[in-house]
Amino acid sequence: MTDHKQPPSGEDSLIARYFRPLATDPGAFNLADDAALFKPSGDDIVVTTDAIVEGVHFLADDPPDTVARKALRVNLSDLAAKGATPAGFVLTIALRAVDDAWLTLFARGLGSDAGLFGCPLLGGDTVSTPGPVMISIAAFGRVPAGKMVHRSGAKPGDRVVVTGTIGDATLGLDILKGGAAAALADAGAKAMLIGRYRVPQPRNALAKAVRDHAHAAIDVSDGLAGDLAKLCRVSGVSAAIDAPSIPLSATAAALLAGGTAGIETIVSGGDDYEILCAIPEDGFEVFAHAAGHAGVSVTSIGTFIAGSPVPRFLDAQGREIALPRLSYSHF
Amino acid sequence: MTDHKQPPSGEDSLIARYFRPLATDPGAFNLADDAALFKPSGDDIVVTTDAIVEGVHFLADDPPDTVARKALRVNLSDLAAKGATPAGFVLTIALRAVDDAWLTLFARGLGSDAGLFGCPLLGGDTVSTPGPVMISIAAFGRVPAGKMVHRSGAKPGDRVVVTGTIGDATLGLDILKGGAAAALADAGAKAMLIGRYRVPQPRNALAKAVRDHAHAAIDVSDGLAGDLAKLCRVSGVSAAIDAPSIPLSATAAALLAGGTAGIETIVSGGDDYEILCAIPEDGFEVFAHAAGHAGVSVTSIGTFIAGSPVPRFLDAQGREIALPRLSYSHF
Repeated sequence: MTDHKQPPSGEDSLIARYFRPLATDPGAFNLADDAALFKPSGDDIVVTTDAIVEGVHFLADDPPDTVARKALRVNLSDLAAKGATPAGFVLTIALRAVDDAWLTLFARGLGSDAGLFGCPLLGGDTVSTPGPVMISIAAFGRVPAGKMVHRSGAKPGDRVVVTGTIGDATLGLDILKGGAAAALADAGAKAMLIGRYRVPQPRNALAKAVRDHAHAAIDVSDGLAGDLAKLCRVSGVSAAIDAPSIPLSATAAALLAGGTAGIETIVSGGDDYEILCAIPEDGFEVFAHAAGHAGVSVTSIGTFIAGSPVPRFLDAQGREIALPRLSYSHF
Repeated sequence: MTDHKQPPSGEDSLIARYFRPLATDPGAFNLADDAALFKPSGDDIVVTTDAIVEGVHFLADDPPDTVARKALRVNLSDLAAKGATPAGFVLTIALRAVDDAWLTLFARGLGSDAGLFGCPLLGGDTVSTPGPVMISIAAFGRVPAGKMVHRSGAKPGDRVVVTGTIGDATLGLDILKGGAAAALADAGAKAMLIGRYRVPQPRNALAKAVRDHAHAAIDVSDGLAGDLAKLCRVSGVSAAIDAPSIPLSATAAALLAGGTAGIETIVSGGDDYEILCAIPEDGFEVFAHAAGHAGVSVTSIGTFIAGSPVPRFLDAQGREIALPRLSYSHF
């Protein structure tokens, strides 16, 4: 009789060590099945998928826990903008080799955020690649039947409202790439901007308020101007934005005032992961109140109007600001 | 007044040209929203995800339509093994550049299979990469509540049953890599093996019969021996396999008889995308009948028994065949 003990294959062992501890949901079957089970609850299910690639959406020397958190959070941000409550995700990760130190930190960051946002790992696939590390996540959320918030639905007269602050992430990336913002003297301010690039702050706390009050919403991932244009296009409206009203962090405002950053970089840079939404005039006060309760700042930056889908950004004197591009595109 | 017409960004234009025509499901919102809507039906939802990487799971010069079909079919195979009916999928694709000819054929293959298997594109993400092309799909299926078939559940005395034929795909890959099987004289036989590697034949037609009759099931993707071991491990059983009973195509049987391929390659090579399942002895006849109706051949290759999770493969004389590895692992 031979001893039939054989170690599990590399992939199985990798999954067991790093990802099984995260699969706390009963529908994940300890990652020991071909598929996961997602129990219906009567709610509609919202599905989104976003991938991040080393050297493109994150940098090779970004801390592994922030890479994991970014991969999950860019998807959570989509769910938030649709008014959905996170319910779970599946992960595919392509790796050149099994780097235990990197994977330990990656799994720790992923597990931490899965717990924080109530979005458990349901299943996944680990594959080898000779190329850059790539992480693709498909995330699921629940909304009461018929209540998903769409990009369409904005009406002339609605306020253009945005959460948080715009432009910090693109300035953080500029620092990491040794751009003009790298000259910033304040180490804390630099760390804040870099943090906004590496670890988005998806506004899932605002999902219910968005569902209750927004005519339309989109997550701002590719640049405020471009994402606003997308919302305008499918809603069949235009927008007039009062650029000085765009919410900026004190650091971004100082870089703008000092000429280190231009307004066109701030509104087209991408990686903000804020929610942009259309709130009817008579609902704004209640929405702002609900947002305050949820701990999310919201700012009215303009008005949806009839007209061309490309929004106009106006300066303090009401002059139109020329935007050479509306958003970031990798192609 | 400036003219506000601006072309959509590269990614938007790519999605509009190639993938929007595939998004026929109303829940896909023409791929013009942040997320898709998946309507609950009262059924349980089965979720799976699998990725394929250029140079690892497909070859750089594989026809683009077969790459798309493989990316979808490896996921459909998981749904079939769980007894689930395909209901939709989301796609992420990482590309070095926009190659119109390649993308046209890729989208055509993907759309063709989405129609064939009733599994519509619900959403996706296109990203740029400096590395190999990678396609990650998360697919959703429906099963009546509580009826998902698991890897666990096989019982001693159950028959070990497999669909189709085993080993063709790994021999096809061997041909493409210029291995021993490339010496095969019969062009039609070569094309068949290569076809099995490039375009898996997921057994979705068998899903209902699996649901109705199998105690446990797994899709055979990493090698019959290794995947059987996985099923045994979570079921807490062992298995004795009569190797001469393993169903082979005439070509694979000839290569085995001629010594060009060994049985260990056939049972551990991977890429079969057949279903391996545990069928109780008294249900086998009805299951085989249902499979015949579904147009899928099924073969009993052994018996689940009590014991170590590593199955034993026995030759015609009842001697155990030594398997240096149970399945393919990229790590």
